Amino acid sequence: KFKHGIKEVKEFLEKLANRGKVDPLSSNFAQYLDENDKLKYLRYEFSIPKSRDVVTDKVEALSPEEECMYFCGNSLGLMPKRARELISQELDVWASSGVVGHFKHKHNRPWVSIEDTVVEKMADIVAKPIEIAVMNTLTSNLHLLMASFYTPNTKKTHPAKELIKVTPPEGESIVPLNSILEIIEKEGHTISLVLFSGVHYYTGQFFKMKKITQAAQKKGCIVGFDLSHAVGNVVLKLHKWGIDFAAWCSYKYLNSGPGGIAGIFLHEKHANDFNRPRLAGWWGSERKSRFKMDQQFKPIPGASGFQVSNPSVLNVVSLLASLELFSRTSMVNLRAKSILLTGYLEYLLDKQLNGLGFKIITPRDPHQRGCQLSLKFFERSVQEKVHKELMSYGAVVDERSPDIIRIAPNPMYNNFSEVFRFVRALKVVIGDIGVKD
Amino acid sequence: KFKHGIKEVKEFLEKLANRGKVDPLSSNFAQYLDENDKLKYLRYEFSIPKSRDVVTDKVEALSPEEECMYFCGNSLGLMPKRARELISQELDVWASSGVVGHFKHKHNRPWVSIEDTVVEKMADIVAKPIEIAVMNTLTSNLHLLMASFYTPNTKKTHPAKELIKVTPPEGESIVPLNSILEIIEKEGHTISLVLFSGVHYYTGQFFKMKKITQAAQKKGCIVGFDLSHAVGNVVLKLHKWGIDFAAWCSYKYLNSGPGGIAGIFLHEKHANDFNRPRLAGWWGSERKSRFKMDQQFKPIPGASGFQVSNPSVLNVVSLLASLELFSRTSMVNLRAKSILLTGYLEYLLDKQLNGLGFKIITPRDPHQRGCQLSLKFFERSVQEKVHKELMSYGAVVDERSPDIIRIAPNPMYNNFSEVFRFVRALKVVIGDIGVKD
Ligand SMILES: Cc1ncc(COP(=O)(O)O)c(C=O)c1O
Ligand SMILES: Cc1ncc(COP(=O)(O)O)c(C=O)c1O
Repeated sequence: KFKHGIKEVKEFLEKLANRGKVDPLSSNFAQYLDENDKLKYLRYEFSIPKSRDVVTDKVEALSPEEECMYFCGNSLGLMPKRARELISQELDVWASSGVVGHFKHKHNRPWVSIEDTVVEKMADIVAKPIEIAVMNTLTSNLHLLMASFYTPNTKKTHPAKELIKVTPPEGESIVPLNSILEIIEKEGHTISLVLFSGVHYYTGQFFKMKKITQAAQKKGCIVGFDLSHAVGNVVLKLHKWGIDFAAWCSYKYLNSGPGGIAGIFLHEKHANDFNRPRLAGWWGSERKSRFKMDQQFKPIPGASGFQVSNPSVLNVVSLLASLELFSRTSMVNLRAKSILLTGYLEYLLDKQLNGLGFKIITPRDPHQRGCQLSLKFFERSVQEKVHKELMSYGAVVDERSPDIIRIAPNPMYNNFSEVFRFVRALKVVIGDIGVKD
Repeated sequence: KFKHGIKEVKEFLEKLANRGKVDPLSSNFAQYLDENDKLKYLRYEFSIPKSRDVVTDKVEALSPEEECMYFCGNSLGLMPKRARELISQELDVWASSGVVGHFKHKHNRPWVSIEDTVVEKMADIVAKPIEIAVMNTLTSNLHLLMASFYTPNTKKTHPAKELIKVTPPEGESIVPLNSILEIIEKEGHTISLVLFSGVHYYTGQFFKMKKITQAAQKKGCIVGFDLSHAVGNVVLKLHKWGIDFAAWCSYKYLNSGPGGIAGIFLHEKHANDFNRPRLAGWWGSERKSRFKMDQQFKPIPGASGFQVSNPSVLNVVSLLASLELFSRTSMVNLRAKSILLTGYLEYLLDKQLNGLGFKIITPRDPHQRGCQLSLKFFERSVQEKVHKELMSYGAVVDERSPDIIRIAPNPMYNNFSEVFRFVRALKVVIGDIGVKD
C-alpha cells in the first residue's frame, strides 16, 4: 500500500478519521489511532524517560512528571526493560563462575558462543544468518570490510580523484536517484567500490538500495552500505538485493544502548571466498580449532569469518533484549506502523504549521524515507532555540547546525498521541520564539 | 629486591617463616603471610566464586559452599563488586534520560566523553594519559595500529620471507633474550616492524621489552607489543622504554568482564605525527568539531586520535570499576605481592611436588615472568584429567593441549592460603590419577 506517496497516506488517514468518526486534527483521532495500533504493547517493554530527566541546565520542565515525547531513536534508542535483567544475569554468571561462564552458563548463553544468541534474530531483520556477524563498532567494521572489498586496480582507478562524492543539486537536500545512476553509468568502469548510506542521517532520505546496487554491479563495482540509520527502521532485503557488504551500529533503531555492539552483512556469494585480503582475527577462525593456537587461520564461512575478537558479553545481551522485541513482531509490521506514524506527523505539520518558519526536507514519498523527518528552518541557528524550548515541553528531538531539527517517531515505542502533543508543542514554541518565515 | 631470581625469593620466604616462627611448609605460614599482606583488603572488593558454581558436568564439588581457588585471571579476571553498581547507574541514566545521557549525567559521567573516566587511571598503570586510548577490542586495535605502523618499504622488506618468527631453541620453551637480539642484529635492517608479546600467554615469559625495543629501534624498526598478559600483571613503563605502540585487552588482569573494552598505547613521540596512514574515525577527530560533520578529520593529538567509534558505555564503566581498585594501590605494590605470591606457589610446588609428573616451564627468575606459572606434564593429555580433578577441589586453572596447566595467582584477589590449599589439592590429584613421572 501507499505506492504513490504522501497523498495516499493523507487520504488514508482521513479515511481512518472518517471511519472512527473523529476530526483528523483532534486529539481524539490520535487516541483512536493508538487504540487501533496492533503494536501498542511494545511501548510497555521500554523505559520511557520523564520530562524532568531530559531537560538540561537552564531549561525548566513544564510537566516534570509526565512521560516525555522521545523522538530521538535515530540517535539513541530507548532502553528495553529486559536489558537490565539480561545484563544482571550475565553479571551473576561472571560473579559466581568467572571464566567457567564461557562453557557453563545457567541461562544457557555460554560466552564462548555468546554471539549465537543474536545472529539469527539480527538476520531476521536484514538477511540470512550466514551473512550476519555481530562484532566491534560500526567504524571499525567499515574499515575491516573495506580492507577486503576496496581493492582498486590500475584499470579501475578514477583518473581525476580517488573519491567521487554524490551531492544533491545546488540548493536542494535530496539526491535524486537519477544523479546517482548517471554517475555510476558514466564513471562506473573506473569505480572500485560504491559505498552509500541506506537512510541518510541528515535528510532522512532512504536511498534506492536495490537499484543502486544493480547499476553499480553491472559496471563491475563492489557495493557496500552504511546502514546505521536504516537497520530496524526500514525493511531491508540485503540478500535479495545482492548487496556485497554492509555495516551498522545497534544503538539507534536497535536500542542496544550507548556504544552498543555493531553488525555486519556479507553476502552469501562471498561466504566461501577466502582469496580477498582480510584483516583477520582468531574469533573468525573455525570454532573447533580456535583454541589450539596452531597459528592456522581457518576462516568460518560467511560473515562470522570476519570476526576478530571475542565480543563483549554485556553488549551482546543488551542487544538481545531489544532483538527479542523485534522477534515478537516483524519489520513489515513495524514499517507499516512507521509509515502511518511518520505520515501522521507530516500530516499535522502540514495542516497545523505549514509555512511556519521551516520546510520538511525529507522526501515526501514514504518509500524514500525511514521514520525520520528533518525540518529545515529558514532562519539559521534558530533550531537551537527551538530544540531547547521543545525540551521544556518534554520533547526530545535532535538539532544539527546550521538549521535542522530531526524528529524520528519510532514505531517500537512511540505512539500517535505523542505525535499529536509534539506538534502542538512545536506550534507554541515557534510562536513564542517568533521564528521568521 | 629479588635481583637474583628464585633463590632469593626462596630465601626471603624462609626468612619470613623464621621471623613468624612457623614452618614454611605449613598452612600456618600461609596464614602468616596473609595476615601481613598489606593488599589483603582488595580481595573483599571482588566476587569470589564458590566451588559449586565452577564445576562443570560430571564433576562433583567436594566442598560446594567453599570459595574456590581462582587462578584463572590470566584468562578472565574476577568481577569487582562495584561493576554491578556502576553498570546499574548507567542503565538508570539510559532508562531515565535516553540520548540526554550524552550531555547530562547524574553521576557525572556524560557519555560524550565517557572514555575520560578511565584514561588517566589506565595511564597510571602503563604510561602517560596522552599515550592512552580505551577503545574496541584487542585484535581490531592491533589491526588499526599496524595499518599505521607496519609500512614496509622496498629497502626494508625481508628477502626470504615476510614474517620472521622467533621460537625457543629445540626442546625448550623459553626464548632467550640473546636469540631475539641476534635476530634483530642480523635482520633488523630488513625488518619494518617488531611485534612481540609482553608476557607470553603460554609460557608466562616476561620479555625484556626495553632491551628488545632499544635494539630494534637502533636498526630503524618500529616496535609494538601485545600486552594482553602483561598489563595489570607486571610493571610497565611504556613511555620510558620508548616503545612505539602497544595494545591490550582488559578482561584478564584488568578484570573488566568477558569481551571488555581494549586499550592502546601510542608513544608521545608519535602524538603529533599525522603523516602516517591511519584507519581513522570520527571519534578520533577533535571534540569541538566532531559533531559538525564537515567531513574534515582533525585528529586529536596522541592515542585518542586513533579512536574510531563512540565506545560502549557499559564496557567503559565495567573497566572503571576495576581501575578504581588499581588506584587504591600501585602496580609497584601489586607486583611486589605478586612476586611473593607466585614465588610461594613455586616454592611449594618445588618442595612438595618436585618431579611429580611435570616441570615448570615458566622462567625461574621472577623478573622474567608475570604471576603465571605454566606446568608442563611429561605425559601428554594428562593435563585434561588434572584440570578436571582440580575442579572438584574448587581450583580453577587453565589447561592447554598438549600438556600444559597454567596457574595465575592474582595479587589483587588471591591470597597465600589459597595457594597453600591449591598445592595440597594438586598433590592429591596427581597421586590419584597416577600421573607418570
Ligand atoms: C596474547 C593474546 N593476543 C590476542 C588475544 C585476542 O584477544 P581478543 O579476542 O580480545 O582480540 C588474546 C586473547 O586471549 C591473547 O591472549
Ligand atoms: C551514518 C553513520 N555512520 C557512522 C557513524 C559512526 O558510528 P560509530 O561511532 O558507532 O562507529 C554514525 C554515528 O552516528 C552514523 O550515523
